[in-house]
Amino acid sequence: MAEAAANGDVRGGGVPRPTNPMVTPLLTDLYQFTMAYAYWKAGKHLDRAVFDLYFRKNPFAGEFTIFGGLEECIRFIANFKITEEEIKFLRTVMPTCEDGFFEYLSSIDCSDVEVYAIPEGYVVFPKVPLMRIEGPVAAVQLLETPFLSLVNYASLVTTNAARHRLVAGKSKNLLEFGLRRAQGPDGGISASRYSYMGGFDATSNVAAGRLFGIPIRGTHSHAFVSSFMGLHEITDKGLTSSDGSNKREDFVSLVQNWLIRIQDSSSLRGTFGETSQSELAAFTSYALAFPNSFLALVDTYDVMRSGVPNFCAVALALNDMGYKAVGIRLDSGDLAYLSVETRKFFHAIEKDFGVVGFGKMNITASNDLNEETIDALNKQGHEVDAFGIGTYLVTCYAQAALGCVFKLVEINKQPRIKLSEDVTKVSIPCKKKCYRLYGKEGYPLVDIMTGEDEPTPKMDQIVTYLSWASLMSKFAVIGEADSREELPSLHEIRTRCIQHLDRMRPDHMRRLNPTPYKVSVSAKLYDFIHFLWLNEAPVGELQ
Amino acid sequence: MAEAAANGDVRGGGVPRPTNPMVTPLLTDLYQFTMAYAYWKAGKHLDRAVFDLYFRKNPFAGEFTIFGGLEECIRFIANFKITEEEIKFLRTVMPTCEDGFFEYLSSIDCSDVEVYAIPEGYVVFPKVPLMRIEGPVAAVQLLETPFLSLVNYASLVTTNAARHRLVAGKSKNLLEFGLRRAQGPDGGISASRYSYMGGFDATSNVAAGRLFGIPIRGTHSHAFVSSFMGLHEITDKGLTSSDGSNKREDFVSLVQNWLIRIQDSSSLRGTFGETSQSELAAFTSYALAFPNSFLALVDTYDVMRSGVPNFCAVALALNDMGYKAVGIRLDSGDLAYLSVETRKFFHAIEKDFGVVGFGKMNITASNDLNEETIDALNKQGHEVDAFGIGTYLVTCYAQAALGCVFKLVEINKQPRIKLSEDVTKVSIPCKKKCYRLYGKEGYPLVDIMTGEDEPTPKMDQIVTYLSWASLMSKFAVIGEADSREELPSLHEIRTRCIQHLDRMRPDHMRRLNPTPYKVSVSAKLYDFIHFLWLNEAPVGELQ
Repeated sequence: MAEAAANGDVRGGGVPRPTNPMVTPLLTDLYQFTMAYAYWKAGKHLDRAVFDLYFRKNPFAGEFTIFGGLEECIRFIANFKITEEEIKFLRTVMPTCEDGFFEYLSSIDCSDVEVYAIPEGYVVFPKVPLMRIEGPVAAVQLLETPFLSLVNYASLVTTNAARHRLVAGKSKNLLEFGLRRAQGPDGGISASRYSYMGGFDATSNVAAGRLFGIPIRGTHSHAFVSSFMGLHEITDKGLTSSDGSNKREDFVSLVQNWLIRIQDSSSLRGTFGETSQSELAAFTSYALAFPNSFLALVDTYDVMRSGVPNFCAVALALNDMGYKAVGIRLDSGDLAYLSVETRKFFHAIEKDFGVVGFGKMNITASNDLNEETIDALNKQGHEVDAFGIGTYLVTCYAQAALGCVFKLVEINKQPRIKLSEDVTKVSIPCKKKCYRLYGKEGYPLVDIMTGEDEPTPKMDQIVTYLSWASLMSKFAVIGEADSREELPSLHEIRTRCIQHLDRMRPDHMRRLNPTPYKVSVSAKLYDFIHFLWLNEAPVGELQ
Repeated sequence: MAEAAANGDVRGGGVPRPTNPMVTPLLTDLYQFTMAYAYWKAGKHLDRAVFDLYFRKNPFAGEFTIFGGLEECIRFIANFKITEEEIKFLRTVMPTCEDGFFEYLSSIDCSDVEVYAIPEGYVVFPKVPLMRIEGPVAAVQLLETPFLSLVNYASLVTTNAARHRLVAGKSKNLLEFGLRRAQGPDGGISASRYSYMGGFDATSNVAAGRLFGIPIRGTHSHAFVSSFMGLHEITDKGLTSSDGSNKREDFVSLVQNWLIRIQDSSSLRGTFGETSQSELAAFTSYALAFPNSFLALVDTYDVMRSGVPNFCAVALALNDMGYKAVGIRLDSGDLAYLSVETRKFFHAIEKDFGVVGFGKMNITASNDLNEETIDALNKQGHEVDAFGIGTYLVTCYAQAALGCVFKLVEINKQPRIKLSEDVTKVSIPCKKKCYRLYGKEGYPLVDIMTGEDEPTPKMDQIVTYLSWASLMSKFAVIGEADSREELPSLHEIRTRCIQHLDRMRPDHMRRLNPTPYKVSVSAKLYDFIHFLWLNEAPVGELQ
């Protein structure tokens, strides 16, 4: 099942700059520059090094992760250049360094760095490299912090979005509403992008919609409702029929009449009294502005005694004029109960007034939703069609960071290992090959890493495999302007991500006690790691 | 104790743009634009509205918050302008809206919006407005999402930094190391800025250091250590003495001799055997590059049996040449134990070789530190001089979002209230005055909000007060290029923040069971809120 490399060569000249203009070579830890100087002083800066970028543990107590952020890494490296202004600043920070070093820094364009990466949007697992970066050690070190900064949050929020999709189910609309609570403006923009990648349907964030072509959604807030005092504020009351007939009616009167008819209808009589006139005016005004896409926030005063009746009056008036309202949004209270009651109300309207389809009116829920609350709603039973999710999605509240690391695995063809008193932190040395092995049901069963020269692993019950070597794209940044292949669009990556999630065995993906997916190294690589470990550990260790 | 307004008028022309170029009027929720259209259609868009920006609950189970993000809000509003390109995009998102509306959007420059804000860096409490924004309702709504996005994370991470300072104590150096784990590149830059504001001493983030004048720190990583195979790699072995005498020595031999002398010294004999030659070569190289600022990461192999002895050999060789090493960094293991053992080792060196001050060598600790781990280190006893804090600081792992909101409190001089089934979510209506009242010990005792026309509140035991009216700066954005006062520098805000924290009564600030700080409304305002509530609630509520 070896797949073709998804991206192919990408050459520097044609690759756009990072989406966020603040992503420059100075967006890094100072120690990358001090190390570069020490390498340079020792004449080691051009030593050929191999680094792996990987994470050690899946987030959110889950057993999978989705790889995000690759395109931004490619944009970064393809345009890598430290400007004269930046060099001037670095000289003030490292005043004792020699001029020749700053000349060297000026000359770095990463044309001698090779990046191998699996495609963005793939389901990935701990310890298996997402990216392998080969090149002169000083230059590659300068990529460490920006790459981690671009991959860590991207992968985390994509995974979080996918988890929300899994619990909500495929039939629900998922809307990302998190900009105001995100960790900085770029956190908000990245959150919108990667939530979409992980399976969300739309965002409220206009800038992100514009940058990445994500569908944008939004209607009105509580403030809009409370800014109105009553229907007297509406001066232009006319609405023209949708049928092109130029029929124009006093929409306010239509709405008022409908409210009385609902109050007196056989199924709903006595369920509510006087509704908020402020709210009714706001809904009417909003419908006059957007008769084709009327969706009302119904919880400013009281959902069942004001918001829903007011909404229905306006929706029925729109219906008279040939427009179809979209639905309501609930932003507080018991969402399961309120959605069920609202649905009953809609069905009563459909029945009492014979408006076909009114019962299916859309119900959107928001208000601090997350995996747990959606799961709880599912268990209680609810009538929500769309979830608007903000804070918990974009800040990855349940686990606010993914711990991707960037480790040296080889230098000058010598394998390197990073030991640690914490065994889970020991790195896997060597330039490696990685495989994903599939069983006869079609599910992936295990990811295996081997040394570079080993043959393809063979195991019982494995019928096919995916080789990272065939999968990993080589992004050789050679500064030529033409002949690059396009980076895949966000929409393509999203589709790939959804397909990959579908292909996983369900027990790895479930929320409660998911089965760990197996990641392994070949017997030969295992022995070699053990040998290196013994070799590197100080006398007295491991004996 | 009424203080002078800190900022004074700030006029548009001279105010720089937002630090992050991605912060534009489109960085907002779509519903701000759809509401603007509905207001415009209803002829209400110029209705004069008053909004309060505040939060409802202190973060991190604490009883205080620090206000951050104001400068970016001022930069945003002072340069508010929707470009023709942006208008073109909005037309595609809202295709049914009339041309006149887009002409209106183009004309908005917020020159008729007034922003009142307490100074950035103040200690603040729930429900009390941090900012009051007055202006045409449609224009002010367009500010909601960007303002929240700029204030929420800024205030959260400033507060988090201040909490880390409180637990670490004033004598420790606090270094922000979080860029690689931050939520997006801008999350990393904002984290560095606001951590410094909240009391940190330096950052590893070069871009943030450059943008905001924050001290930058960094030395080397584990990869640097494992990139060396042995001392044979060092080709240029000479180091010139620091005394200007041009004395030049074979530094590698000096280091090797010192390592043997340490191994044989009376106090340390037998405590370690053969050290890692890879590590020794890396330390030696780093010292050759930075003889004036040698700080070594000592846990790549084994702290006590390799890292610390190797460091001491290099530090003593530097000492021979007139240079003073800085110290070591620990990045794994039992930091309390290792720092104590390392300190003993340093004292033994001082005693055995008579190198005055060697025992006081700096010990920096890093590795997933947070409030809890620093508190635990304090209880165990440790010898750490500086903490490098990353993930938990910058992602605000313990609570990844602050819930600032932006609520309409008055329109056309009519007070507005937002009700909710959740009582804590009911907004406090009216254009208000706010006071902080101080007792005779000098501590603030309570924050009080009154109606605009009420007299200054009087209470027993209150000897002085701070009036928000005197404190809140009016940022009138009137588009004139000159006569603006400078925004305070980050360093000034940081100093103010530290002073304000010092002024608080300690029981409000402690980690465990802090005493809630009192926030109240005047009796008159309380009665008025109750009256409004009864008035607005649907029949049957609150009776």
